Amino acid sequence: MATLGIDLGGTKIALGVLDKDRLVYSARAATPQSGAEDVFATMIALAREALDRAGVLVRAVGVGTPGPIDFATGTVRFAPNIPHFQDVPLGPRLEEALGLPVVLENDANAAALAEHHLGAARGAASSLFVTVSTGIGGGLVVGGRVWHGAFGQTGELGHVTVLPGGPVCGCGNRGCLEAVASGRALARDASYAYAEAVTTPQLFERWRARDPKALELVGGAAGYLGQALADAQKLFDPEVIVLGGGVVHGGGGEAFLAEVRRAFAEHARGWRIAALRRAELGERAGVVGAALAAQGAGERSS
Amino acid sequence: MATLGIDLGGTKIALGVLDKDRLVYSARAATPQSGAEDVFATMIALAREALDRAGVLVRAVGVGTPGPIDFATGTVRFAPNIPHFQDVPLGPRLEEALGLPVVLENDANAAALAEHHLGAARGAASSLFVTVSTGIGGGLVVGGRVWHGAFGQTGELGHVTVLPGGPVCGCGNRGCLEAVASGRALARDASYAYAEAVTTPQLFERWRARDPKALELVGGAAGYLGQALADAQKLFDPEVIVLGGGVVHGGGGEAFLAEVRRAFAEHARGWRIAALRRAELGERAGVVGAALAAQGAGERSS
Repeated sequence: MATLGIDLGGTKIALGVLDKDRLVYSARAATPQSGAEDVFATMIALAREALDRAGVLVRAVGVGTPGPIDFATGTVRFAPNIPHFQDVPLGPRLEEALGLPVVLENDANAAALAEHHLGAARGAASSLFVTVSTGIGGGLVVGGRVWHGAFGQTGELGHVTVLPGGPVCGCGNRGCLEAVASGRALARDASYAYAEAVTTPQLFERWRARDPKALELVGGAAGYLGQALADAQKLFDPEVIVLGGGVVHGGGGEAFLAEVRRAFAEHARGWRIAALRRAELGERAGVVGAALAAQGAGERSS
Repeated sequence: MATLGIDLGGTKIALGVLDKDRLVYSARAATPQSGAEDVFATMIALAREALDRAGVLVRAVGVGTPGPIDFATGTVRFAPNIPHFQDVPLGPRLEEALGLPVVLENDANAAALAEHHLGAARGAASSLFVTVSTGIGGGLVVGGRVWHGAFGQTGELGHVTVLPGGPVCGCGNRGCLEAVASGRALARDASYAYAEAVTTPQLFERWRARDPKALELVGGAAGYLGQALADAQKLFDPEVIVLGGGVVHGGGGEAFLAEVRRAFAEHARGWRIAALRRAELGERAGVVGAALAAQGAGERSS
């Protein structure tokens, strides 16, 4: 069954129609910064055009959104990077405008679903997806479905404590993985260490040039990531772990992944560990995952 | 459907017949220390007597065992506290002797299942069970079933890293929760702090008497437990967490649980957290959980 996936981000709205596991139509537009009504108008115009032009019968719509979702009412409680976007009844509004069932999903969970079914974790019975970018997010997939947990907080590897008493995280706790290994944390530590403003891409440039401070900073982040992955292995025991996001792709690449893999094995001596793979779908993961979420669990038991 | 649950421990073999969620027959015997054949003989004799005398038709047998299990072949790879018990085909041997299907389950997972269905977590959609005794074990239940993970390593909260670079754990890694908060770790640290041999029960006696060193030692363990529970909340997000084992029951009791609860909330500021409850089934959890495991997942979707 063909479904429409919409990936609502802070700077762009991307969407695509997925038919038999292939994207048969794609489009995107800038995210209006002027409030929820303009965001709605853009999404609905893009979606209507997609339904008209995709050439297949679309039966449901999935939307990946940042921030917490009230799944019972289809409401986005807030979207951290979209101005004036709070308590928005996204599900019901889109259902009314498009005349199709609409499913909301957290954007990291949508990407997890996409990598599980059609990306780096395809064929696995369970997978953990982790995205390391400005922040660190993630999602868990078991039996082909996102595991949401009791309060929609699963797969939040970024908020596992890896350095007790360490830096205060955006979430308010100390020493979270995100507070020591995210792109933002790396830029903070690099700017301090070099006593000048250093961006994450600049840090990774120096790391590739084997600058000693950069080696120490990036090596530390890889170590914390490995430590948190080992924790996840002992609690949830996934078959495959997929790493995505700017720090892994644009930043560190395969050499960084190898450091993470080494630290992961070191923190799980005597334990069996998941295969650690780079995400394959890149930016498309959001759209593909939203479309997969719309297919519903019953119709897609991988 | 009535099932027989057998709890194979290092010092005793306990068993019971569960019918309509009630134990209608119970028995136990000392675990032979003379090898697998004598363990078999004792288990089979106890089981036959149970089948004869329970007064209900038993249709399947579940066995909770310590140590890793090869689920595909029904083999116990080894049982840490039972001499000469290695690569034992427990499942096939019992099936042959009793003429009933036999299901093996890890003992902590069996207890998790029992507390989920008939104990402190009944009614919850998901639960994490943690036992704090000599060591720290656990199990995860989702949708009424134990989640085994890819390598049978789920719910191993005892081996989450809580103190990077801390004491070397029995598993070979540093700073595991078990290495700083288990009964054995507490006895080690108390014996050092008091410069004399101090057992865990003695430590908790001093803790109840508000001895400063004991307050520091036990408070530290509660803090690490809370930290690890917060990690579990962010990765697996259970609805209910059940704490059992000697340190929680005989040792610290409700006051200790309150300290753990405080630390849990402190390490998860801004997050929603599971209800933290004391285990209700005590020693019966092993037998009840083994019997529940024998009922099979399909016939028991809570």
